[in-house]
Amino acid sequence: MKLNHKIIYPPKGFLFSGIQAGIKKVLKNDLGLIVSENAAQASAMFTTNLFLAAPVVISGRRIRNGQAKVILVNSGNANAGLGEAGIISARKTSQALAKELGIKESLILLASTGVIGEPFPADKICSKIPELVKNLNPFGYQEFTRAIMTTDTKEKISYCSLRVQGKEVRILGMSKGAGMIQPKLATMLGFVLTDAQVKAKFLNRLLRETVPDTFNRITIDGDTSTNDSLFFLAGGASRVLLSPDQPGWSRFCNGFRQVCLELATMMVADGEGVSRWFYVEVKGARTRQDAEKIARRIANSTLLKTAVSASDPNWGRIIAAAGIAGVKFNPELASVYFESADRKERLEIFKLGARSPKYQGRESEKRASRILSQAGFRIIFELKEGKGSFEIITCDFTEDYVRINAAYRS
Amino acid sequence: MKLNHKIIYPPKGFLFSGIQAGIKKVLKNDLGLIVSENAAQASAMFTTNLFLAAPVVISGRRIRNGQAKVILVNSGNANAGLGEAGIISARKTSQALAKELGIKESLILLASTGVIGEPFPADKICSKIPELVKNLNPFGYQEFTRAIMTTDTKEKISYCSLRVQGKEVRILGMSKGAGMIQPKLATMLGFVLTDAQVKAKFLNRLLRETVPDTFNRITIDGDTSTNDSLFFLAGGASRVLLSPDQPGWSRFCNGFRQVCLELATMMVADGEGVSRWFYVEVKGARTRQDAEKIARRIANSTLLKTAVSASDPNWGRIIAAAGIAGVKFNPELASVYFESADRKERLEIFKLGARSPKYQGRESEKRASRILSQAGFRIIFELKEGKGSFEIITCDFTEDYVRINAAYRS
Repeated sequence: MKLNHKIIYPPKGFLFSGIQAGIKKVLKNDLGLIVSENAAQASAMFTTNLFLAAPVVISGRRIRNGQAKVILVNSGNANAGLGEAGIISARKTSQALAKELGIKESLILLASTGVIGEPFPADKICSKIPELVKNLNPFGYQEFTRAIMTTDTKEKISYCSLRVQGKEVRILGMSKGAGMIQPKLATMLGFVLTDAQVKAKFLNRLLRETVPDTFNRITIDGDTSTNDSLFFLAGGASRVLLSPDQPGWSRFCNGFRQVCLELATMMVADGEGVSRWFYVEVKGARTRQDAEKIARRIANSTLLKTAVSASDPNWGRIIAAAGIAGVKFNPELASVYFESADRKERLEIFKLGARSPKYQGRESEKRASRILSQAGFRIIFELKEGKGSFEIITCDFTEDYVRINAAYRS
Repeated sequence: MKLNHKIIYPPKGFLFSGIQAGIKKVLKNDLGLIVSENAAQASAMFTTNLFLAAPVVISGRRIRNGQAKVILVNSGNANAGLGEAGIISARKTSQALAKELGIKESLILLASTGVIGEPFPADKICSKIPELVKNLNPFGYQEFTRAIMTTDTKEKISYCSLRVQGKEVRILGMSKGAGMIQPKLATMLGFVLTDAQVKAKFLNRLLRETVPDTFNRITIDGDTSTNDSLFFLAGGASRVLLSPDQPGWSRFCNGFRQVCLELATMMVADGEGVSRWFYVEVKGARTRQDAEKIARRIANSTLLKTAVSASDPNWGRIIAAAGIAGVKFNPELASVYFESADRKERLEIFKLGARSPKYQGRESEKRASRILSQAGFRIIFELKEGKGSFEIITCDFTEDYVRINAAYRS
């Protein structure tokens, strides 16, 4: 997968803005706005956490209309864990914005990210809304992306352009997320916009079909936040009507999928303190569910992740994690392989329940260590129980993760 | 709970030894031996990991006789992940030891701890057996305890002496365990010896009743190793016959429980890189199982554990973890409290779904931070779903954990 950027022409009909509102303690963008010139068809997915941040509660209600015109986002404060007070504060900001833009409040979606439980600075945000609106422009997506970052070190933007029905359709995705990341649903903030003309019900179906194989396939620390939201808006300015019956639908779906997968991979690669990201692939499990359980257990083992940070092929930690995943399998038929990032080199480490005879001595260890030092390498855990497989993207675990999270609020 | 040591008089009829056999890369004790002068009644519990180390397979078979005379332990190599070769190597060492002591091999129990997947140095161990046996003595328990340590920084020894039926009964416990610790069963190596005369079936019942509330109530990193073993031997040299019908049985059970709990707490307090340990108590869940799930999720949240390492009362991470524990509850009836180690100070942080009105401003945060800096403080998560409760002991998560585990094999 390429993580390099191309030249981006944002989808037509959208305006973006990002400014410093003084919500973060440091002077960085922390308030962002997306406006669709026409009311867009809209779909979203939210966190599975039982504790829902106020913007998630409100957006969850409004998205049911299948229509939206605006997304207002802030970083630096999650507006979570505040009960009714959080809802009132969030409403205040969307009321002020509705008034400024002269639109119905129900067309405004909200998202927040940052510390949980701090009083929400609604007045500060309201006072900055005129400036935020004034800054709106069709190329402001980068300023917007900066406004949603917390401990992220890089902007996460993915883009694709398709020719459909003889016209151009664009898809632009922007996301943030560097810790508290194990999407059991979209775990992060994510915004995907297109200028195709697609009904909300089809957006919704496509979103739900795509997330399991993209955003739900990454994990950083096994935590799922109170604020995770993924929005998908179709403004229609390209005047290309798309639905499952129309020509070009599958290419559109595939473009959307690529954008989601690229954003997801960027999120893992930029996880807190991450020095490298890698795949965990489980094959031959009884079911896909079994494979997923094992893959997640391996990918979230702090012992394995710390070993990877030192390129230490301590593969015992892989089988130890697999063995407590809560899935029954015959350990005597289990094998483990390491595969290089370019998939050209494959080491057999553990074969049918025992250290592989092909993996002996210092030279083997050195080769394994070289593979583990590459971003994008692959750990393959193979069983002989059935055809269930699952692949997850994860990252190593460094002293910097601890440093960042110990210091996060100070 | 006191972690201080008293003067220890080991149970009568046991001999101990611990020496340097060169299994570890550094010159430290790594081979240990316990011998019961008479064949002891014996019971044990082992890891729930599907991948079983060779000594676990062998000891698991031999313990079925309910009798044992000897436990041979090494650190520095787990003898796991080696398939049949691991079993053969382990058998070699117990054959040599049986010959040296002139006893039946089936009376020898084995345990190993260390790196998984490295070839097991059976010959090295066999060559050291005469020296190991020569060093046996009734007060060698400290040398033995040193021989089972890996990344442990302290010896973990717990002791109690009871007067039963007018005579003295002693219980001595020794354990190791500093990472890969979440006992879903005895997760670690543990050895509890008594000179009481107790039938194996009663030892077994007592062990299974005690472990859920002692060793199974601690977690360091949520990982369960391939080698965890807990042995309980009754040699009988005190000539005090104990069974559930005899006077003094409940006091004996309680003494055993105290020893197990003290060892468990020592293990958390000496977890890898740990700067402080603490309790997570969940109350008012629908069932005990629900409470346990939530408690484990909170106790294993790396985000919370890193915040605690900096005494940062970032309580949002507590509710975020609870909300994804896989347990249904009404978040609007959830509350969170911090309690000081001496249980005299209690802060209401989160009350019925929102930040508590009593917890506002810098002064509150400072008080919370002071509580979080104490070893043995308590996080209480309260629901209103029923009467299910669970308490778990865990520890913070520091840069040192990462440093230790990244460097473990090098």
